[in-house]
This record gives sequence, structure tokens and C-alpha cells, in this order.
Amino acid sequence: MPVSDAHRIQTSDLDTPPRLLLGPGPSNAHPRVLRALSNRQVGHLDPTFIHLMNEVQSLLKYAWQTENPVTIPVSGTGSAAMEAAVANTVESGDSVLVGCNGYFGERMVDMASRYGASVTRMEAAWGTAFDLETIRTAMESCRPQVLGLVHAETSTGARQPLEGVRDLCDEFDCLLIIDTVTSLGGVELFLDEWGVDAAYSGTQKCLSCPPGLGPLTLGPRVLERLEKRSRPVPNWYLDMSLVGKYWGSERTYHHTAPINMNYGLREALRLIAEEDLEARWERHRTNANLLWDGLADLGLSCHVDKEIRLPSLTTVRVPDGVDSGQVARTLLTEYNIEIAGGLGALAGKVWRVGLMGFNSRPENVMLLLAALKNVLHR
Amino acid sequence: MPVSDAHRIQTSDLDTPPRLLLGPGPSNAHPRVLRALSNRQVGHLDPTFIHLMNEVQSLLKYAWQTENPVTIPVSGTGSAAMEAAVANTVESGDSVLVGCNGYFGERMVDMASRYGASVTRMEAAWGTAFDLETIRTAMESCRPQVLGLVHAETSTGARQPLEGVRDLCDEFDCLLIIDTVTSLGGVELFLDEWGVDAAYSGTQKCLSCPPGLGPLTLGPRVLERLEKRSRPVPNWYLDMSLVGKYWGSERTYHHTAPINMNYGLREALRLIAEEDLEARWERHRTNANLLWDGLADLGLSCHVDKEIRLPSLTTVRVPDGVDSGQVARTLLTEYNIEIAGGLGALAGKVWRVGLMGFNSRPENVMLLLAALKNVLHR
Repeated sequence: MPVSDAHRIQTSDLDTPPRLLLGPGPSNAHPRVLRALSNRQVGHLDPTFIHLMNEVQSLLKYAWQTENPVTIPVSGTGSAAMEAAVANTVESGDSVLVGCNGYFGERMVDMASRYGASVTRMEAAWGTAFDLETIRTAMESCRPQVLGLVHAETSTGARQPLEGVRDLCDEFDCLLIIDTVTSLGGVELFLDEWGVDAAYSGTQKCLSCPPGLGPLTLGPRVLERLEKRSRPVPNWYLDMSLVGKYWGSERTYHHTAPINMNYGLREALRLIAEEDLEARWERHRTNANLLWDGLADLGLSCHVDKEIRLPSLTTVRVPDGVDSGQVARTLLTEYNIEIAGGLGALAGKVWRVGLMGFNSRPENVMLLLAALKNVLHR
Repeated sequence: MPVSDAHRIQTSDLDTPPRLLLGPGPSNAHPRVLRALSNRQVGHLDPTFIHLMNEVQSLLKYAWQTENPVTIPVSGTGSAAMEAAVANTVESGDSVLVGCNGYFGERMVDMASRYGASVTRMEAAWGTAFDLETIRTAMESCRPQVLGLVHAETSTGARQPLEGVRDLCDEFDCLLIIDTVTSLGGVELFLDEWGVDAAYSGTQKCLSCPPGLGPLTLGPRVLERLEKRSRPVPNWYLDMSLVGKYWGSERTYHHTAPINMNYGLREALRLIAEEDLEARWERHRTNANLLWDGLADLGLSCHVDKEIRLPSLTTVRVPDGVDSGQVARTLLTEYNIEIAGGLGALAGKVWRVGLMGFNSRPENVMLLLAALKNVLHR
């Protein structure tokens, strides 16, 4: 049979522009992480890879400040880790309460619904957070088995304080899932201290690794519930009762882990351990303050109150009469700087500026402020 | 609150041994692919990345010989693409017939069951294939909406001929899913000619790219059924009605694509287009024949009949009295050559030897044969 050449297109050598990625992610990977990606491969059951898997698990526990036995990178992006958190905690018929104060809360609602949960949406304005009284009232009315909150809302730049939430969850015998996609490696996180049962993240934000893996951690209460399930998790790829055995001491084959992406994640996590977690959080705060002061000097205001504003992601209000998309396009095409517009309720109303991981540096703040000044005042 | 250093382990620079990966995958990535991985990043909605996504889609169509509009890399490994194929074709209550003549047929049974299908297992000995009469008889008895066959069984090294299967599927109004994990880019594939409705693969076999993406293609009959579903696909991450819009002309945000892995896949697919698909298939056949002749000279026999033996993966019978695991371990530790043992019904009975993509070269065959001779005859 003859082979068709219809789709045998001509292509050129890969040659991408030198972008500075100051949007909501991906951020630029650290150069050491990029180099690690192209390291020669070993097999996914090779003793050297198994050693590397152990290192990745330990360093993830350090970054999240947790002792959770299942603390691994899911072989997909942050969204896959989010779905893994939902699929492994929620059973069909469960009552699930989700804090909806941004795009990623809404996504958790969609996911939990697909797993047959009866989902209650606890709503608040985009850019705000929930207080304990509001959470208690919502829990009293729907008596959830699972509470989902977004610690770092990538769509709004708001941080959800978590002190005191565990006590409520204990009162209602409820699991606590949190989204740390835009906080892990950049913003204070004390998972065990806060009594979080499940958390997930992505590699392409404050970890300074390209997208492609989704860190996930599950605590003892989740594992216990997983063991007692009446039916298997209705998702084979993300069933942690299978995946956990591959990453655990049994090393039972489940799927082939993304070898080179794990090389990159290991290097990214090593960089955190070298820098020291507290120093890294402090660096993110310092550079965010530089940005916020500079924005004020330009007459621009931030959408989120300073007390709950994420140092990793800032939403900047678009002044009246300014076309937000046009400004972002000009920054990209004239200066190779990527920032993003708003999502959902904030579309057209804000820009989203990320200072994440390797990119959280004063020179990036200065450059962005200078470029923004040029573009806005031309 | 003080940060705990309990998991802040000491690690050294990444330094992996120079393995020659001649097992069932991963195979060694092509050096150009490894270099592409560490290329500087752009954002996942950057115009340059959108152009790259189009190139990847075209080149995948070439490799699979299909015009299917949805032909994309799933942001997970081959197992995720397999689950995507199942989740997007099967609805709860459907009758699904799966050819079980190896490990990956069994996996499809597990997955389809989790999506609520009534699954019928069509069984045959591991290492054999199904003939049309057997398939017809099974279809008559269970009247399936979906038929799943493994074109290239990674656990046995057997190839499932597909000529004539479409006619049967038309007769029973049935979708045809095939597993091409170990054939795409190395073994003859004519998806459209064979009337395949959905196929999936992995990047770490004959494409010579590291693991981390799962090529998936869905034909018009699948997309039509997807549109008519009464309930959404019960898997958010792999719901192709959402993912397809991200890869399609709308570019609607769904998740952040693994940028650097897509750089690697693009380079891997370019290498196929440069080599020419027929030349590449021929190369795989030629080197497999070299291997098979050399094994015979060593007094070793192959488990699968030559007519349906995969050129990409050979199962070699372990001679009586030989410890298969010990031989594999010696090859790895003394010569840095990875081969694998058998799975399931073939555990302890065969070795699995892959000659995939970049690794399908005569010098690798010679080296393996020489090493195997040393280890077996010492």
C-alpha cells in the first residue's frame, strides 16, 4: 500500500523567541532545570531511577512541609493532579463543598460533579477569600464529606488563609483539599500544620520547571478512605491505589513515568533545598513588594487587598479606556515579555503578572515596569 | 512558624549511567530530541507555540496515515492516551469487546469496566493474534458498541492483523479502537485504510522521544458519538470535547500543555518525516531480521510466529534452567544494556528485546548478541 505524503510537512529547526514569562505560568524554567531535561535516559524501573524517585518524593515533602506518605508527581500537568485529588477523595453521592472565588474553584466543581458528587458552591467575589464564619455556615447547611479550597487562586491572585479550617473539618468529619498550584515553592505553605488532607500543584509556576508533572500529596485520612471504597476509583490513570504502589516500596509497574521531566523536577526541587524554603518565600515577598510599589508609581492599582495578595501572582487593574489585550500583545511583540489578561469575571478588567521561582528577581520587576510605562504612555 | 528540614535531603548532580535501552520501552531518545527538550520556553498560548502545535498534529497524521481531525498528543503518558480513547468512546452501559491476548488487552478491560461498560473478554494465547472468524463469533454473541484490539502487544511482541476488521465493525455498527503503543513510527500502520476509529500510542517507543506524551487520534464516528453523549465524559482531564478545543482552531484554555515535551515530540516526528515512513518501517524490519538470525545462531528461539512477529519488539524464550532475571541484571550491571523479562502469563518464560526508533541499528543488534552470548555461556 502506498504511503501518503499529505501531512509530511516541511519544518525548520526549532527556534523560539527569548520570552520572559511574567504571566500566570508557565514561568521560565531555571537554566539548570532545562539542562537536566536533556540528560541521557535510564529505564523507568532502573535502580538509578528508583533512587531518583525517592529523592523527588523527599524534596516534595520539604517544599510542602508534610509527612504525607503519598507525595509524588502525577504523570500529567497540574490539572491532572487536581483531578487525582478529586477522584481519590470523592465517591459518587458524596456531598462536596467548594469555595468558588475564582476560575479554579469552578473547575473543582466541574470535576467533582463528574465523579458523581452533590456539589455545593460557596461563592465570593473574585479576588477575595473566605472567612471561617462563612465556611462554617456553608458546612452546616450541606454537611460535606469533602471541602475544596484554593490556597492560591491563579485567576485572581488571592490567597486563602487556612488557619482554623482544620478544626471545622474535624467538627464535620470532612476532608480538606487545597489547590497550591501557584503557591508551592513560592508562598508560605505548612500542609501538616494546617491539617490539609490533599493538595496538588503544577511544575511550571514557582518550581521553575516546565509544565508536564503535577505534584500531589495525600494524607492518612485520604488513604484510609481510599482503602474503604466500595468501588475502584473510576479513573485508571489517576487511581492512587495503583500509582502509589509504583512510587511506593513495591514498585509495581503501572505506567512509564516521564523520565526526563522527573530529571527536571528533581533539579527544580534541589534548587529549593539549596536556597532554603524560608529564604525563597522571603525573596518572593521582597520582589512582589518592589512590583507593587512600582505599579503604584505608575498610577496602577492592584485588584486584591494587600493582606491576602499572593507574592507569586498580582492582578493589576486595567485603567479606564485602555485595551488590556493590546497592551499584552505589545509587550510580547516589542519586548518579548509575556503577561496575561483576566479570566472569567475578571476578563478585560485586570492583567495577571507572575513573579514565580527563578523569575522572581528585581531585574525582571524593573524591566516590566519600564516596558509597561513605555506602552501605557506612548 | 519554623520550617522543618526533615526532608531537606542532600543530593548530588544528576549523573546517570550510559544505558542502552533495548527493553520494551522507554527506548533511547534521539540526541536531537534530547537537545530539543532543553530549548528555552514560550508560553502555552504564545503564537509560536500554537504554530508548533499545528506542526505536531500534521506530523502525527503522517506517522499514523490518517486524516482524523483530532490527532494530538495527550498531556500524559501512553496509558493516559489509552484511557482517553476508552473514556471518549465508551458510555456507561455499552457493550465492549476486548481482545485479550496479552497484558495491554487486560488493561483495556480494566479501564472500560471503570467507565461502566459491560465488557466481554475475547481470549487467545499470549503471543498469538485473532482471526476474523473468531472476532465475528465474539461480536455475534455480545453485539459490542466498541471493539478494542491491540495492534502491537508490548507484553508478547505479537502483531494483530487488521485487514477485514472494519467490515465486521460496519456490520455490527461498532467503533474500532487499537493500541499502537509499540508500532507507531516503527511498524506499518494505515489507520484510515483499516478504518480505525481511535488509536493511541506513547512517545517512548518507536518515536524515540522520552515518555511523557500520549499520541491520540479520534475519527469522525467517535466525534459524532462524543457530541451525542447524554452525559459529559466522566474524566475532566481527558475529555476530548474540551481538549480538542484547545488543540483546535478555538485554542480555548483547558490545561497548560507540556511545552518542552512537545518540543521533543516535534523533533521526533520531524526525524520520521526526514527519514520517510516506508524507509523507517523497512529499517525496523531489517534490523529485526538481523536479531532473529543471530538469536537462532545462539540456539535461542522466538516466542511469536514470524508472520505476526513485531519488528519493534521480540520475545525470546528463556532456555530451560536459565534464570531470566539474573541474565537481565547481568546485562544491565556489566554492560549497561537493559532488556526486560516477561509480564503476566509470560513472566520468567521470555525476555523482551526492543529495537525501536533510534535504537533500531545494526550495531545495537551486534552488541546485544555478543553480550548475550557472553552471559549465557559463562
